[in-house]
Amino acid sequence: MLTARAEIRVRYAETDAMGIVHHANYFSWFEVARITLLDQLGLPYRQLEAEGNRLPLLGAEIRYLRPARFDDRLTVHLEIREKPGVRMTCHYRITRGEGDACEELTTGATHHCWVDLDSRPCRPHPRFHDAWERAHQATGG
Amino acid sequence: MLTARAEIRVRYAETDAMGIVHHANYFSWFEVARITLLDQLGLPYRQLEAEGNRLPLLGAEIRYLRPARFDDRLTVHLEIREKPGVRMTCHYRITRGEGDACEELTTGATHHCWVDLDSRPCRPHPRFHDAWERAHQATGG
Amino acid sequence: MLTARAEIRVRYAETDAMGIVHHANYFSWFEVARITLLDQLGLPYRQLEAEGNRLPLLGAEIRYLRPARFDDRLTVHLEIREKPGVRMTCHYRITRGEGDACEELTTGATHHCWVDLDSRPCRPHPRFHDAWERAHQATGG
Amino acid sequence: MLTARAEIRVRYAETDAMGIVHHANYFSWFEVARITLLDQLGLPYRQLEAEGNRLPLLGAEIRYLRPARFDDRLTVHLEIREKPGVRMTCHYRITRGEGDACEELTTGATHHCWVDLDSRPCRPHPRFHDAWERAHQATGG
Repeated sequence: MLTARAEIRVRYAETDAMGIVHHANYFSWFEVARITLLDQLGLPYRQLEAEGNRLPLLGAEIRYLRPARFDDRLTVHLEIREKPGVRMTCHYRITRGEGDACEELTTGATHHCWVDLDSRPCRPHPRFHDAWERAHQATGG
Repeated sequence: MLTARAEIRVRYAETDAMGIVHHANYFSWFEVARITLLDQLGLPYRQLEAEGNRLPLLGAEIRYLRPARFDDRLTVHLEIREKPGVRMTCHYRITRGEGDACEELTTGATHHCWVDLDSRPCRPHPRFHDAWERAHQATGG
Repeated sequence: MLTARAEIRVRYAETDAMGIVHHANYFSWFEVARITLLDQLGLPYRQLEAEGNRLPLLGAEIRYLRPARFDDRLTVHLEIREKPGVRMTCHYRITRGEGDACEELTTGATHHCWVDLDSRPCRPHPRFHDAWERAHQATGG
Repeated sequence: MLTARAEIRVRYAETDAMGIVHHANYFSWFEVARITLLDQLGLPYRQLEAEGNRLPLLGAEIRYLRPARFDDRLTVHLEIREKPGVRMTCHYRITRGEGDACEELTTGATHHCWVDLDSRPCRPHPRFHDAWERAHQATGG
């Protein structure tokens, strides 16, 4: 399993007239967590693109459990649970607070396809593949 | 079944560095179609709020089949297929072009809860309920 | 003088927790009016790019006189008042309502530079230049 | 003078099809710097609202000197140079990089009005006023 965490502080521009975060913004936060994961693997997204790969979305789901509000400090937890092939799924949980006060606000997933710069499906970048293998062995998987 | 159609022209601000529409923006277009449906039923969202109802999201899904691009003219097709109760699901298709050249870009759904202004679940607004009943009878449902 | 008008209906996603439109969104509406002007001149922005030109922003100003709200129908009025050279300024007014009930919500301007695809400053596209000359003669300028 | 600095990392969702950051997003970053200033003064914006004040925009200007790109690490420098009264101006510079490699990308300003919750103009919040006075004395102003 590959995991990453990203810290988000809710911007005023991300709220709507209901006084809570507009539902479309959570997808941008999921994206921040994906960028963070790639950084951790030593493969920043800019470099990934420069080396000929992209990770477009095939689909996504989200469940809204509790609303996020302006100025909230949130944590986006990302997990890749299944071995990434041409297709890859990222799972997310967004939480607010720590310890006993920790609340789950959102769960979701995004489904991606590894493609080259001509948009042809391809295998995951070798460094990404290796990171998965190392993480898998470390957990005795 | 209740249906609505909204016409969207893609704005430059909605694109991203891949040269296509950023995936989060489709949810704002789904929202435009919901507003259009309420208008058609003689129950604009502003009035709905003024009369004590809101329609927050419980969840959503989306599948991206083909990318939308800057300046594309798109149609968002909305359908409510099941009788709305406290919970209500809206289904969407986004298409580009007409007739034989019509392409499906996206399909999706949003799941909502009818609530009052204290965020307590409630029945659909009477005018919304009546619209469903009329549409249902018209189709011999 | 070159002029264009674009009709905007305020989306829920464009509001913020103050219950009004977030101030950054007006710039996207100004952009919609620029696209409309180019359409009117028979030189859609997509074609302009395909023919080797871009119109990046050098700067902008805006004054907020009255807030726009969800579902408002607005008109963005665009004027190019000075002969476009390498640099070009677009002036904007955003209004709500018609006739005696017409209110001015916003005034502003965006400053642009005509560039080629290598980002080198260049003259306005010939069709744009011609449109200015024709409009100028028509008004006895 | 009151000053604050906010660190921004450019999100993919903030780019557009030109491959650079869309010009409207800089205003959201200016806003992040204002929130940071209020935090530093022990007067978070949420508390400011709870105590009956708001800071709507009257206007804004911006100059774009160099484009920001995806994944850039930027610093937003905020300065309040003139004594805040009912009206208050915030000045901004956005920079990328440190030391000799530091580049200025953007300069700008936002003009605000202190209002109460009924949108009537009012004096700055006492804690804000005091912070200005202390900063002013410290610099021998």
